[in-house]
Amino acid sequence: MDTDAAQVVHFSNYFRFFERAEEEFYSRLGFNFGEFAKKGLWFPRVEAVCRYRKPARFNDLVEVELVVEELREKSVKYGFRVFNNESKDLLAEGYLVAVVADRQSGKAVAIPKDIVEKLKPFCK
Amino acid sequence: MDTDAAQVVHFSNYFRFFERAEEEFYSRLGFNFGEFAKKGLWFPRVEAVCRYRKPARFNDLVEVELVVEELREKSVKYGFRVFNNESKDLLAEGYLVAVVADRQSGKAVAIPKDIVEKLKPFCK
Amino acid sequence: MDTDAAQVVHFSNYFRFFERAEEEFYSRLGFNFGEFAKKGLWFPRVEAVCRYRKPARFNDLVEVELVVEELREKSVKYGFRVFNNESKDLLAEGYLVAVVADRQSGKAVAIPKDIVEKLKPFCK
Amino acid sequence: MDTDAAQVVHFSNYFRFFERAEEEFYSRLGFNFGEFAKKGLWFPRVEAVCRYRKPARFNDLVEVELVVEELREKSVKYGFRVFNNESKDLLAEGYLVAVVADRQSGKAVAIPKDIVEKLKPFCK
Repeated sequence: MDTDAAQVVHFSNYFRFFERAEEEFYSRLGFNFGEFAKKGLWFPRVEAVCRYRKPARFNDLVEVELVVEELREKSVKYGFRVFNNESKDLLAEGYLVAVVADRQSGKAVAIPKDIVEKLKPFCK
Repeated sequence: MDTDAAQVVHFSNYFRFFERAEEEFYSRLGFNFGEFAKKGLWFPRVEAVCRYRKPARFNDLVEVELVVEELREKSVKYGFRVFNNESKDLLAEGYLVAVVADRQSGKAVAIPKDIVEKLKPFCK
Repeated sequence: MDTDAAQVVHFSNYFRFFERAEEEFYSRLGFNFGEFAKKGLWFPRVEAVCRYRKPARFNDLVEVELVVEELREKSVKYGFRVFNNESKDLLAEGYLVAVVADRQSGKAVAIPKDIVEKLKPFCK
Repeated sequence: MDTDAAQVVHFSNYFRFFERAEEEFYSRLGFNFGEFAKKGLWFPRVEAVCRYRKPARFNDLVEVELVVEELREKSVKYGFRVFNNESKDLLAEGYLVAVVADRQSGKAVAIPKDIVEKLKPFCK
């Protein structure tokens, strides 16, 4: 379902791979987006960028690498690189910028300290 | 993005076509799902069925027919048929059963009267 | 991205979970859909059914169980049950019927013997 | 199905809106991606960028504006802006860069002249 009629992975799905890597990353850090939601925190994306190098095809296994490219008071920029798991070819690279916001007001707020502490070791 | 590596529309997307037809139908009746949500009403699906006859391919235009197959106190069953717009071939047919529920409690409630009245003329 | 504005997993995504389980199943059996495609084999779905019991929410981990419900000369019916990984609650159950077809002609053909042999131990 | 648990349209779906606008644009120009595919032409994306200004919510109607930002020998850059149809607020803006490639070889080729002629009037 990730491929399209050109028999390659549809370009929009790389953003979904990015997000899946981000969720997995937070989960490994011991965080739970469900709890953030209960606290009224929301992580809207403000920018999403991807550059495509080589196509991924049906049944290819891909690996997604995540680095914290920039950690600011109210926003974080994650860099992603997607590799073909077998050939190790770089398929795509890009980034997401997310801010932390209060869900009621919609306003940006400071990233909670416990998140900042856990993200620091993954900064470039 | 609706097609897959077999160069036909991915089977799961027919359910998205069904839903798009349903939204369009309600919108034509003058309803607004956004307002239902504000009233705390939620329309969870309890059953989704599709039988596939012929594939739809990239760039095909399809037409979705919706009928109200069954209107009960707390649930409604919509029947759908998907046609190729050019050849008029039947591509798929199926149905969705939705209940009306209170979002807080999650319990099924009676379908609001104004909805029932507007759905009646479309019953088989 | 699997959830919707009602904050539950969108009903159409269960079919994507079914398919992901099927791919994983074939991969564990040592098969590769990419190779099937090269041989000109195609597995169009002829029927897809899901009944929804309880919603899955954001960040829930789900487990998908697959059984081979029926193995015919040219078609196979897989049964699926989706569970919440923590509560073990049954969230949804359904099935997919797929036929094996020749991609050129589009006609149904017999399921290759090596597949039949590997599927047999998983028949109900 | 376009919204997520934060009750706004999932960021990856804007790229799908971009693509839908592109398809509609080509269709209005009298082109048919299906025919391009038959001629062995393929339009892989090499870059996709979106910046998000305001969220779109369930049931919002959006309008997508497309301009041809750059027309090169073998590539085209489309700019997109997504507006809320009612408030006219700018929700998101971005671009896609696509190259024209031969599907067999995967190599970039010159954009066919009939396409170039029809795109020119839409260049910024």
